[in-house]
Amino acid sequence: MSEITATVCVDAHGGDEPPEVVLAGVERALGEDEHLRVLLVGFEDVVTPFAQAHERCDAVTCTQSIAMDEHPVEAIRTKRDSSIVVGCRQVRSGAAQAFFSAGSTGACMAAATLGIGRAKGVDRPALASVLPGATPTVMLDLGANADCKTLNIVQYARMGVAYSRIVVGVREPRVGLLNIGSEDTKGSMAAQERFAALREQVPEFVGNAEGTDILGDRFDVIVTDGFTGNVALKTLEGTAKFAMRMLKEALTSSTAAKLAALTLKPALSGIKTRLSGDRMGGAVLLGVKGVVVIGHGATSPEAVKNGTLVAARAVRDGLLDDVARQIGSQG
Amino acid sequence: MSEITATVCVDAHGGDEPPEVVLAGVERALGEDEHLRVLLVGFEDVVTPFAQAHERCDAVTCTQSIAMDEHPVEAIRTKRDSSIVVGCRQVRSGAAQAFFSAGSTGACMAAATLGIGRAKGVDRPALASVLPGATPTVMLDLGANADCKTLNIVQYARMGVAYSRIVVGVREPRVGLLNIGSEDTKGSMAAQERFAALREQVPEFVGNAEGTDILGDRFDVIVTDGFTGNVALKTLEGTAKFAMRMLKEALTSSTAAKLAALTLKPALSGIKTRLSGDRMGGAVLLGVKGVVVIGHGATSPEAVKNGTLVAARAVRDGLLDDVARQIGSQG
Repeated sequence: MSEITATVCVDAHGGDEPPEVVLAGVERALGEDEHLRVLLVGFEDVVTPFAQAHERCDAVTCTQSIAMDEHPVEAIRTKRDSSIVVGCRQVRSGAAQAFFSAGSTGACMAAATLGIGRAKGVDRPALASVLPGATPTVMLDLGANADCKTLNIVQYARMGVAYSRIVVGVREPRVGLLNIGSEDTKGSMAAQERFAALREQVPEFVGNAEGTDILGDRFDVIVTDGFTGNVALKTLEGTAKFAMRMLKEALTSSTAAKLAALTLKPALSGIKTRLSGDRMGGAVLLGVKGVVVIGHGATSPEAVKNGTLVAARAVRDGLLDDVARQIGSQG
Repeated sequence: MSEITATVCVDAHGGDEPPEVVLAGVERALGEDEHLRVLLVGFEDVVTPFAQAHERCDAVTCTQSIAMDEHPVEAIRTKRDSSIVVGCRQVRSGAAQAFFSAGSTGACMAAATLGIGRAKGVDRPALASVLPGATPTVMLDLGANADCKTLNIVQYARMGVAYSRIVVGVREPRVGLLNIGSEDTKGSMAAQERFAALREQVPEFVGNAEGTDILGDRFDVIVTDGFTGNVALKTLEGTAKFAMRMLKEALTSSTAAKLAALTLKPALSGIKTRLSGDRMGGAVLLGVKGVVVIGHGATSPEAVKNGTLVAARAVRDGLLDDVARQIGSQG
């Protein structure tokens, strides 16, 4: 574990679960990383007792929280004292270097973009995640921007390269463009234009990727617009869930199956963990002046721990500097 | 089984497998459906002996075949005596009512569109498939057109309704637009325009669908452009394959696991069949003047049988008439 202190602000009220789930995750993170400091933002009765009972944890109180189904931009405009808005303010002021929330993705993106601000040279921040397939693949944009220009795709690629290097640890990331065929000439008019720009401006670009490559081993970074990326991510999640449900049905289809399933439980639970996304701690918003990690709404102590530790690692390993370097290298 | 004769032309050389796999599938189809007639198109030494040995099967000979990796349009222009081009010619001439091939999707689409011709009122044929999730969902376009206009999406919806009614048997299909959020106002500018047109022009339209809905039970038809549809389909296939590979690893991870897996084999093989797509026999090209079913390249006798029988059923149940009726109803 690194000896550099990293301060992560954690949203106690993020997600569909009660704050206790987040607190349990923060406790685990503090236990695993002895140079981690946490600013816990939330209602006084939730965060103050916890901070008093834990070393390296301070409380930041607020009086509002944003529900998962609120309109993101409206919520962050009207709820100035919500945990998400106050949390991003901690990063802006320098009190924390990173923000982690399992709350509304839209509200976190809006609060971070408006409250922390865009990084120099970045036109549009993008949502990225590490997909744990045959090899870990960084995919972006997963839905920060429904529409985008070719220029944005090039920036996504550069930011994805930085993320793959710093957080996944790939020295020379191979970048692919999500498309509908692997040949160079394939795709929609937009895809063909993006292909040409990536080939010209991103040295790490190796060619077109397909949907089957997202969980494969041919690419370390896959870039696409936020519309296609979000559809692909949700299709992946839906398929994984469907496969797990069918597996569960098969394992409970008879008494013999149930007995056999007991033997297989340890081996099978690995599949669930791998496909659930808990391991990677969530998505990161690349292109803002701070490390912002957003977990799944349906979170768990393990997911909160991982999200917090990923944020701390990104701080220590200089993700922001590397993104700035990548963006700065653009023509 | 219906007593109406249906004549399906089957491509003996389609796909990555040797013709024997196709022949085995045709034999099964002829055995299951005693009112099926097959025109088997292929090299003389392959198709003639088979036709002589089987009732209700005639041979159509040709001298060329198109490989899976050939450029589709170029291949069908230069190989005028290939099984795909000759097969589509059987439909155009009226010798057969349907064509089934497990060959190159691109070559089949090009040969059908150019060789059989577009149906009246259809600007662009679309590739549709039935995805066997919680309930069967027809999704289109899966990649016939990388770019399309809002007008095309409306036509896809109408054709999808006909396919869901005729082939899946859903009396009142619910149509969804693949988008990145379920609320009416979500999505890219193109998605918002498509939403408005569907709401106005397609009575069966019920709202936005997400990637998680493809294998769900909320929609009977999901429409999208061929770029997004192809990415989603390949993401689904890649995720299913990845889940099956992890399952296989878990089941062979120890001697105890291997023993338990033996007990579970029948229950688990159901998952594989369901996710493999063999059951549905392939994709259908909607909007041409004939029934055209295209199987997976990596085919099996079961998949060939199912594809041939789906084509026969579509002929008997009047898919083309229903598509024409749906398209004719447009404003």
